[in-house]
Amino acid sequence: MSTNVVSSHPKPILYSYWRSSCSWRVRIAMNLKEIPYDIKPISLIKSGGEQHCNEYREVNPMEQVPALQIDGHTLIESVAIMHYLEETRPQRPLLPQDVHKRAKVREIIEIICSGIQPLQNLIVLIHVGEEKKKEWAQHWITRGFRAVEKALSTSAGKYCVGDEISMADCCLVPQVFNARRFHVDLRPYPIILRIDRELESNPAFRAAHPSNQPDCPPELPNK
Amino acid sequence: MSTNVVSSHPKPILYSYWRSSCSWRVRIAMNLKEIPYDIKPISLIKSGGEQHCNEYREVNPMEQVPALQIDGHTLIESVAIMHYLEETRPQRPLLPQDVHKRAKVREIIEIICSGIQPLQNLIVLIHVGEEKKKEWAQHWITRGFRAVEKALSTSAGKYCVGDEISMADCCLVPQVFNARRFHVDLRPYPIILRIDRELESNPAFRAAHPSNQPDCPPELPNK
Repeated sequence: MSTNVVSSHPKPILYSYWRSSCSWRVRIAMNLKEIPYDIKPISLIKSGGEQHCNEYREVNPMEQVPALQIDGHTLIESVAIMHYLEETRPQRPLLPQDVHKRAKVREIIEIICSGIQPLQNLIVLIHVGEEKKKEWAQHWITRGFRAVEKALSTSAGKYCVGDEISMADCCLVPQVFNARRFHVDLRPYPIILRIDRELESNPAFRAAHPSNQPDCPPELPNK
Repeated sequence: MSTNVVSSHPKPILYSYWRSSCSWRVRIAMNLKEIPYDIKPISLIKSGGEQHCNEYREVNPMEQVPALQIDGHTLIESVAIMHYLEETRPQRPLLPQDVHKRAKVREIIEIICSGIQPLQNLIVLIHVGEEKKKEWAQHWITRGFRAVEKALSTSAGKYCVGDEISMADCCLVPQVFNARRFHVDLRPYPIILRIDRELESNPAFRAAHPSNQPDCPPELPNK
């Protein structure tokens, strides 16, 4: 058999929702590493959320996006997926070589991915209720951004940690977008804002932006 | 100079609270790797929470435990700390060699550390309010444990992923303790229960247990 290892698996499929910040992290990482992939949109709002249907629950028992079918496996959880990509596709590294810088990247990731995003995602805000959700989201984003800004004050160069784009940047940009959606005052976080602006024009980040997703509604005001 | 690298830094100091599940994860990892350390207790309840005082905010701007002073650096965020320990102290590995098993370990970690624990930690429950906090915690733990049990159904051997203890086990055991505190019915999760039981008698896990911490109140009923 002359099977080519690369072609023995079809193109990766990313289950994604245009506005999901966790899907967005993985889209950026895939783009930075120049891994071709197809998107299968999962609407988090249509018919009460397609992520809750039986078929998708088999893909991701957490009933959330993203999920990535790659190399014959289905992976879930965005930070785990980014680490898998890093370990199997070392091109364009998303973690620094230096062990202390790696710890700093993972620290920023964890502040965002455990300390902020889980508290202001759609499913939690539904539980919090319409009346209180804006104040709730602002509270947790503000608390987390104070810590992120403090971490960046000793780690940032052009990007979150030094002058190379890392997984931390893949997590920061979608979180800044969420902060704006909830009208968080971002003026106290000049380093966060500078890095976000720096990455705005990066092609990998631009292609991963919600407004450039196939499932983004055409009427989106800021498309 | 004949300075010994190991002795050039003092013994690591872990800022910890006896009942904090995030501190507990790091205590287990340190014990498994047989790294000697001193504990500096930070009470999350005394005087409105010692983690909010100015002095500690300099250690951890997220105003939470754990923080680890090691190798001349202060590290925060438990999963980032465990990865740092893994990368600097390879003895007694806490991640499998196989890349797909590593992804599974990180998937289980992320379900717990982003999908469950942040939603039921002390600071969030204070915001939820006394009246609703039990129902709130039960809801998110139940949702997460359904996904953890499903993940374990294909990954578990003696432990979360195969027959070697990993970082996933360091995260699972403290989360099961939290589930019991909030009276979650654990009968639907036989694999979680079996692994928790298996690890109960492990010396590294036993020494890290809240009831064996210097700051555990003597009147603790289940000590």
